[in-house]
Amino acid sequence: MKAIIPSVKGTRDFYPADMAVRNYLYRTLRTVSEQYGYQEYDGPFLERIDLYAAKSGEELVKEQAFVFPDRGGDEITLRPELTPTLARMVAQRQGELTVPLRWWSFGPFWRYERPQKGRTREFFQWNIDLIGVSSPEADAELVAICAEFFRAVGLKPSQVQIMVNNRKLMDQSLADLGVGAELRPRVFRLVDRRDKMSAADWDGYALEMGLGAEQLAGLKALLADGELWRKSEDFLRFFAVLDALGVREYVRFDAQIIRGLDYYTGTVFEARDVDGGRAVLGGGHYDNLVSDVGGDPLPGVGFAMGDVMIGVVLEKYGLLPHSGALEGAALVTVFDGERLIDSFRLAGELRQAGLRVVCYPEPAKLPKQLKFADKMGIRFALIVGPDEAAQGLVTIKDLATRTQETTAQEKAAEKIAEMLAKPAAV
Amino acid sequence: MKAIIPSVKGTRDFYPADMAVRNYLYRTLRTVSEQYGYQEYDGPFLERIDLYAAKSGEELVKEQAFVFPDRGGDEITLRPELTPTLARMVAQRQGELTVPLRWWSFGPFWRYERPQKGRTREFFQWNIDLIGVSSPEADAELVAICAEFFRAVGLKPSQVQIMVNNRKLMDQSLADLGVGAELRPRVFRLVDRRDKMSAADWDGYALEMGLGAEQLAGLKALLADGELWRKSEDFLRFFAVLDALGVREYVRFDAQIIRGLDYYTGTVFEARDVDGGRAVLGGGHYDNLVSDVGGDPLPGVGFAMGDVMIGVVLEKYGLLPHSGALEGAALVTVFDGERLIDSFRLAGELRQAGLRVVCYPEPAKLPKQLKFADKMGIRFALIVGPDEAAQGLVTIKDLATRTQETTAQEKAAEKIAEMLAKPAAV
Repeated sequence: MKAIIPSVKGTRDFYPADMAVRNYLYRTLRTVSEQYGYQEYDGPFLERIDLYAAKSGEELVKEQAFVFPDRGGDEITLRPELTPTLARMVAQRQGELTVPLRWWSFGPFWRYERPQKGRTREFFQWNIDLIGVSSPEADAELVAICAEFFRAVGLKPSQVQIMVNNRKLMDQSLADLGVGAELRPRVFRLVDRRDKMSAADWDGYALEMGLGAEQLAGLKALLADGELWRKSEDFLRFFAVLDALGVREYVRFDAQIIRGLDYYTGTVFEARDVDGGRAVLGGGHYDNLVSDVGGDPLPGVGFAMGDVMIGVVLEKYGLLPHSGALEGAALVTVFDGERLIDSFRLAGELRQAGLRVVCYPEPAKLPKQLKFADKMGIRFALIVGPDEAAQGLVTIKDLATRTQETTAQEKAAEKIAEMLAKPAAV
Repeated sequence: MKAIIPSVKGTRDFYPADMAVRNYLYRTLRTVSEQYGYQEYDGPFLERIDLYAAKSGEELVKEQAFVFPDRGGDEITLRPELTPTLARMVAQRQGELTVPLRWWSFGPFWRYERPQKGRTREFFQWNIDLIGVSSPEADAELVAICAEFFRAVGLKPSQVQIMVNNRKLMDQSLADLGVGAELRPRVFRLVDRRDKMSAADWDGYALEMGLGAEQLAGLKALLADGELWRKSEDFLRFFAVLDALGVREYVRFDAQIIRGLDYYTGTVFEARDVDGGRAVLGGGHYDNLVSDVGGDPLPGVGFAMGDVMIGVVLEKYGLLPHSGALEGAALVTVFDGERLIDSFRLAGELRQAGLRVVCYPEPAKLPKQLKFADKMGIRFALIVGPDEAAQGLVTIKDLATRTQETTAQEKAAEKIAEMLAKPAAV
């Protein structure tokens, strides 16, 4: 046997059990998105590299994007994120689209990163945005959608928390400490790095960039102040919405949340696994989605969640669905070559009656066919032997309860529905 | 305003209305695939170029594939088709997988072709295969799935036909005409080109490759013989299954169907728009899926359908769904800033009751909010003014029937369900 040609590093094969997980995420986030009246959209998976120049961080474009010349010579890239595409699509139809826009998407993205637990080079991402409105209530809606998603997949507030901050509040607080406007963006980056450095290194870094000792002490007090949000009218309105929507317990203020992108201008948020602190999703409010790509300024709020880390977290808490794709299905067995056609006919009739039906596609010994059903997780096996055929009957074996019943063929679908209602012994 | 950065040629933007069409196809082919007990899977979108060397036609790899070095130096490609990936995935787990395998997939593919009606460089494709079995009944099951899909989208047998042939039958028929084994592959290619050349050119091409005048006459008679299939025991069994499954009327024998790939060894089929003859999907039986990529030989049958041409055909026959994503949704309007929070609360309660609910995210004049609902195709607008608020009431405006009712807030979901049951005036 030849060696099997390997797959590309950082990509994944989705065998049916893996696909069931991806579909479970897609289905669940679809339900939540649609409950809030968001519409699904998608962009191309290929874009011109210049689209990312305006919006994306340099690291993303220069170090992580897959870029290549197409056969026509243009530099194109496998999309590393969706926002620039969203901006382009909105700009293209800015006159026609009805704002506020509520759009969501789920699809593949590519980043050339070192593959590790919770990170692949090809991944799927949920993107959702509310565009054309600037209000604390709009920001709260997006955070509520996060929380509703967590609730829908069974994650509890004790397992996952959405940490929220506001860039404007932080900007004002830094101003109150006497930090000049020109230094503040660097202080934001400093705050963003706090969890990634030792306390001593971080202090050194702060003093080095020009913060005074008193300012540093003030900054530390600020970052530790869980009640800072109460100074902000916007935050009061924001949390009132989360209360009204019944998801307040998933959300807490954290002055240390900054988010890397310069792009965010107001509310920023990040959801983390409480145990371990890994970020599961992130997002925020922006003032200007489209003018960089050629449209008129348009504010909004949105977030993105990759499929890999949430998968790791769900697995950790035992919340991944087991793949029971064929659980409710039936196998019509084949008695012999002559009666093969009768099996196909019966299978067709059962499908018409709404059942998911596999017909064994060639004559084979019955134990082999039953073993196939068992391995595939198919619960019901239908047998039509010569005696049954003569009387228009079928024997239904329930492989879960190890019982069987013989019934008229036209009653088989009904009988299976009855048997499905009974609990299956394991 | 700056010029908007254009999208990559041959790619598509999926605005919500376009996405609704893609989703409609995906949903419908999922239903049909699952009715027959097929399991969804997917491969990576990137593969190493050498994976395609064994299985794909030269044209596909050399002229149509997007190939580029990744940052690690490997030559990788955006998948132009799924079969080589399927072969790799099956080979990797050949010992563990339970055959017969019934697998289907729907996802993106890329081919660097000239964009034209019915063809894009980035497209979606349905792939479905029954692997590990070689029987006319298995082949018939795949053809039946095609037909069931056409029926599910509303295409009639008068609009679309699945043309079927068998390579072995053709091989035997050519042998009967005295065409030597070494010449037969070239005669297959000749047959495949018949619709693409003038009759005179085609005749000349045939004689040039070494067919005698009598053999050519015999070949023409063969291609015109609609009853040739009756000579084949396999075809008798094949059509019997289509009869049993109630889809016979979608399928007919056509000796001219060859399919380009050398890969097919038995049954081959192609579905065409009857008016215009454009191919919508194609597939066939193969003897050997996996040994080229390092597994043990495994037969099977499968087909692939792109989303673009079927979209063109459905549009032509007026069978595309109109996008009514927000039809059953409700808009909770906002009376003023002070009562914004009450609107969010009511929206949350209605979502709990199972409704799809948009809450207007900031204070605005009521006519503006109603116009928004109208433009978005949202049928119901809910208004809570000061009087209603004091009594726990809500007014529900049905924008379709232009009627309104005032009801207790906790009865609103129920009332909307009632109103939805009434036909909407246009």
